[in-house]
Amino acid sequence: MNAAITGVTGYAGMQLYALLQEHPEVETINVYQHDLDDAIPLVDLNPRLNLPHPQLAYPYDSQEIMANNDLIFLATPAGVAINLAEPFLKAHFPVIDLSGDFRLKDPAEYEKWYHLSPAKEADLQNAYYGLADIYENPGASYIANPGCYATATLLGLAPAVMGDLIDPDSIVVDAKSGLSGAGKSLSSSSHFSRSNENLQIYKANQHKHIPEILAELSKWNPKVQHLQFMTTLVPIDRGIMATIYAKVKPGIDEMAILNYYHDLYDEDPFVQICDDYLPDIKSVIGTNNCKIGLTFNPVTGYLTIDSVIDNMLKGAAGQAIQNMNQLLNYPVTAGLELTALAF
Amino acid sequence: MNAAITGVTGYAGMQLYALLQEHPEVETINVYQHDLDDAIPLVDLNPRLNLPHPQLAYPYDSQEIMANNDLIFLATPAGVAINLAEPFLKAHFPVIDLSGDFRLKDPAEYEKWYHLSPAKEADLQNAYYGLADIYENPGASYIANPGCYATATLLGLAPAVMGDLIDPDSIVVDAKSGLSGAGKSLSSSSHFSRSNENLQIYKANQHKHIPEILAELSKWNPKVQHLQFMTTLVPIDRGIMATIYAKVKPGIDEMAILNYYHDLYDEDPFVQICDDYLPDIKSVIGTNNCKIGLTFNPVTGYLTIDSVIDNMLKGAAGQAIQNMNQLLNYPVTAGLELTALAF
Amino acid sequence: MNAAITGVTGYAGMQLYALLQEHPEVETINVYQHDLDDAIPLVDLNPRLNLPHPQLAYPYDSQEIMANNDLIFLATPAGVAINLAEPFLKAHFPVIDLSGDFRLKDPAEYEKWYHLSPAKEADLQNAYYGLADIYENPGASYIANPGCYATATLLGLAPAVMGDLIDPDSIVVDAKSGLSGAGKSLSSSSHFSRSNENLQIYKANQHKHIPEILAELSKWNPKVQHLQFMTTLVPIDRGIMATIYAKVKPGIDEMAILNYYHDLYDEDPFVQICDDYLPDIKSVIGTNNCKIGLTFNPVTGYLTIDSVIDNMLKGAAGQAIQNMNQLLNYPVTAGLELTALAF
Amino acid sequence: MNAAITGVTGYAGMQLYALLQEHPEVETINVYQHDLDDAIPLVDLNPRLNLPHPQLAYPYDSQEIMANNDLIFLATPAGVAINLAEPFLKAHFPVIDLSGDFRLKDPAEYEKWYHLSPAKEADLQNAYYGLADIYENPGASYIANPGCYATATLLGLAPAVMGDLIDPDSIVVDAKSGLSGAGKSLSSSSHFSRSNENLQIYKANQHKHIPEILAELSKWNPKVQHLQFMTTLVPIDRGIMATIYAKVKPGIDEMAILNYYHDLYDEDPFVQICDDYLPDIKSVIGTNNCKIGLTFNPVTGYLTIDSVIDNMLKGAAGQAIQNMNQLLNYPVTAGLELTALAF
Repeated sequence: MNAAITGVTGYAGMQLYALLQEHPEVETINVYQHDLDDAIPLVDLNPRLNLPHPQLAYPYDSQEIMANNDLIFLATPAGVAINLAEPFLKAHFPVIDLSGDFRLKDPAEYEKWYHLSPAKEADLQNAYYGLADIYENPGASYIANPGCYATATLLGLAPAVMGDLIDPDSIVVDAKSGLSGAGKSLSSSSHFSRSNENLQIYKANQHKHIPEILAELSKWNPKVQHLQFMTTLVPIDRGIMATIYAKVKPGIDEMAILNYYHDLYDEDPFVQICDDYLPDIKSVIGTNNCKIGLTFNPVTGYLTIDSVIDNMLKGAAGQAIQNMNQLLNYPVTAGLELTALAF
Repeated sequence: MNAAITGVTGYAGMQLYALLQEHPEVETINVYQHDLDDAIPLVDLNPRLNLPHPQLAYPYDSQEIMANNDLIFLATPAGVAINLAEPFLKAHFPVIDLSGDFRLKDPAEYEKWYHLSPAKEADLQNAYYGLADIYENPGASYIANPGCYATATLLGLAPAVMGDLIDPDSIVVDAKSGLSGAGKSLSSSSHFSRSNENLQIYKANQHKHIPEILAELSKWNPKVQHLQFMTTLVPIDRGIMATIYAKVKPGIDEMAILNYYHDLYDEDPFVQICDDYLPDIKSVIGTNNCKIGLTFNPVTGYLTIDSVIDNMLKGAAGQAIQNMNQLLNYPVTAGLELTALAF
Repeated sequence: MNAAITGVTGYAGMQLYALLQEHPEVETINVYQHDLDDAIPLVDLNPRLNLPHPQLAYPYDSQEIMANNDLIFLATPAGVAINLAEPFLKAHFPVIDLSGDFRLKDPAEYEKWYHLSPAKEADLQNAYYGLADIYENPGASYIANPGCYATATLLGLAPAVMGDLIDPDSIVVDAKSGLSGAGKSLSSSSHFSRSNENLQIYKANQHKHIPEILAELSKWNPKVQHLQFMTTLVPIDRGIMATIYAKVKPGIDEMAILNYYHDLYDEDPFVQICDDYLPDIKSVIGTNNCKIGLTFNPVTGYLTIDSVIDNMLKGAAGQAIQNMNQLLNYPVTAGLELTALAF
Repeated sequence: MNAAITGVTGYAGMQLYALLQEHPEVETINVYQHDLDDAIPLVDLNPRLNLPHPQLAYPYDSQEIMANNDLIFLATPAGVAINLAEPFLKAHFPVIDLSGDFRLKDPAEYEKWYHLSPAKEADLQNAYYGLADIYENPGASYIANPGCYATATLLGLAPAVMGDLIDPDSIVVDAKSGLSGAGKSLSSSSHFSRSNENLQIYKANQHKHIPEILAELSKWNPKVQHLQFMTTLVPIDRGIMATIYAKVKPGIDEMAILNYYHDLYDEDPFVQICDDYLPDIKSVIGTNNCKIGLTFNPVTGYLTIDSVIDNMLKGAAGQAIQNMNQLLNYPVTAGLELTALAF
């Protein structure tokens, strides 16, 4: 197959490119960029891609993209995919959109959280939220790849919320992310001298991933009506740890909880339940895995769920590949058998 | 005055020594160590102390200590102060104990959380829990200096709990600490290759500081009967951020909360309430300050309290100096006017 | 093929295991450990290997190893391979030894630098120094895989020394390494609180890699008789930068130097000459590449050579795979087409 | 005394402000900024200064500055002090200029290295290069405070060059700096995701500090005519390590070298010669000290000099205070008795 990408200068696009290079089903990767008038060497567009062989990047042209490729990945900043989506939607051409533009169904919600003009409601309805470890794609061609925080939080909460094991009013998520989650653009909070040796809470109660998390949780269990969710920048390159607290309902014991988690995930090659320890971030870096540890405190009645992912892989490019594999009926682990060195 | 220290090879003891060197009221610092048979140069005992001038470290001898000093700091590991305290308690000789040995009033609690033999109950009753920004020493000579996590958590929660502003059953503390909090001893979790680029939850629901936090909270408000408290190691040298979540009681508004916090702390030179932002760790490193930021989420009803300290200063040696200043009636900021560079 | 490993609890062994899992020619990886009496699940031996499927680790037995495998990797600490080598050497069974035990030809040299009893001189003579980007294996079955610092330094110096471009008396190597190079064992210099936010020079003029570097250099150009070589620990997980200084001989110009470097390496898929910039460490992390940048200072007459590698890959496990590929006539890049994300 | 500062939003200015707050001779610190039309609270100008008490920042006005202060610190970027200096020079009003604008005597040199218009030659001649551990101020009122790299390098080389102990043609300096040395302005090389877990050589053979180092070296020993000097960014907040290599002249032994170093520095409270080890960066962070370790390699004939400083203190604000103490005849260590915690 031939895969198209736009947005290969950003971190997620770079990671995606790297994964596609190793994917057994991918023959050619074609890069398209809006800011090009003519084809240029890809290495000139992004020297950090570390390409061994010369390859070109092309000006962006949706017709040419559809003519020469089987699928396109949009690894663009918020607000861009809205303007690119139309021709692909009309043609039912497969799109995997790593941005947040098509994750929310309600245009007003998008406007509220993103402070940008939303896509048309009909288009939003046609997009499919590709939380690949939970859902099977029902045949949609436009896939909104979930956010990194959303993935860690939703995978951590799914069995507890689906199984109605926890008090829906008691959920608190303290999520920590490495700096790559904040992207490549320059800002004082991502300056080394500010972020190193520091912890910074940011976007308190205002993070864009809150509505997409809540939309899924309330779909799984309508009793979940809100979510206390906070994000902290930690001085590491990659990785998210979502530490999730919730009160267990009376009558539910620890073993029952563990069983629910194993039932949902034991067939999934990418989610591991750690029975007797809380996983550290380093144990998933470089992989498409989500590791989940659980600990119940009988004194407080709280369950603590520790859900860790590599934000660039499971939280972005890895899950995008998972979605491509589903869409094109490739083996679920194709291109994702990543073995990482966890010191 | 002359100040004695034992435990000057550990991080807290080193930090204490550094502060005492600058303290305007301290004339001589005398170092005593159990493992010495004879006096040796202090620089040989601990080259990292960076001493400009030769000075001796002496064998430990309680009578000699009391004869030549006005006060002793015990910067010893858990279990050691229990064996040192007796002669000082009998003589009403001033002690500031940085360990956890005398923080809990109930010997059984100590045994449960520390897995060590406790001090005698009568001695525990005579020790005073020196949470210096909240309490005035009533004249006790044996001061149990609070734990680092306990300090950040208690200062963050005090106005909310004292003022009965929050649902006592809803408190969740997600506390993060730099590696110096884990001490100088070697372990796989503090090996650079394991702890760097990593987040590690540790001692889930079993951290020794839980009972001392709960003891104070329930003293302030008997409705607080338990506390969901979790600790995560973050790859920085110094600093604690306690992110505290609790549901605000109906009828309490954000302004009322802020007022409670200002009322309690506005006269305190070491605690700052940040009205409109959540402070980062770097803004307190190198100081004896605790900065507290507050944000209320009207959707979830949760208050988030962000309490940051330098674990080596406010969380250990700085608060020890505060306690010395109280005990010996020195100005409250003596030796603690630290100005730090917050990049 | 079936590959055996011993030493899979160390960093190099773990990295090797990860690479072998992806190697297209490797069918089975068998792990053998001396400290086992019976086979145990590999995941119990090393939970950090992150194995998806159950697999066993076996007690070490050289006959069984040779019966069931085509090659063995020894990823053992210094001094161990000396005791393991004999049966393999006798049987001409392929060995790739990642330790330093068989890198030096002279037993006295080994004793001097390693402070350990050396292997027999005859055995040392039979071992082959597998600097895979420079040499073709002439058929030796026992391969001494080069040291990490040696690899970065030798690849950086090879064209200059072979081409007699520099004053042999003027070579200064200032080499910096991440902490993984110091291994997994606990020590005060690898404690996070000591190594973070720090630079530490270590083993000044006494690093074990000095004699293996000098042996190759003087083979390439007998005028090189010594080498000023210094190592500094930097607070990163992985990577080596060897900054090499040497005076260019009169009459040699910059273009001539660049040509020598391109001539030697342009056919090599793993060594890249950066014509107009000095590469950073991050651009090679996660790959088996060595990037080399060159800058000539006409004022001082010094050439600066910046040679960067991932110490765990090109400097250990990656080069070991390269050596296996050579030995067993696999394609040179088999299992080493690693694409990394260079933020 | 009253001290004026301009440039208090940069790192060096912040550090200077912090030191002045603790200086026993300083009564008032007055802050002046060009971008102000009216006085504003200093905390609004720079919230990171962490000021306990309200204080104002004033519009910049040289007459008012001279009327109300005894001295001014210019902590401004390159090119700014040139436009501020004139009125102070005319009035012989004491200035300590932390920028590089008046360090070079030759306007053409300044233009070549700084790519900016130089100050007038007469003014340059009147400025005094304040390398405070080597020189006594002869009475100059305009002090050019040395650069951070220059300070570490010059203090490390002074005895060897003054004593003619080394081959002047063999000096190689491999200098490493933390990110604060690169300043507060945003750039891709100081973005956390680029600089963390990385080493980056920068400004190869073109660093602005080269000419000021060479000017001093050649003044001390005219045989020194050039200097191979390279700078590498390391992922730490603060600190410089200058690793200096030079061939020892025939007939000079290690003891003679050590004696030269002790002779020059033993009376200096801020420079320590480490007789038997090479100091790490952490041992000087938070202090105004320079630690120097020496090791001689009899095989290569090279002396390695390891010179470490805190770039913000000895390399900027600390040395500025030293220069103020000299100029105003305060005790040499006034305001600089800093005790740091070297984990």
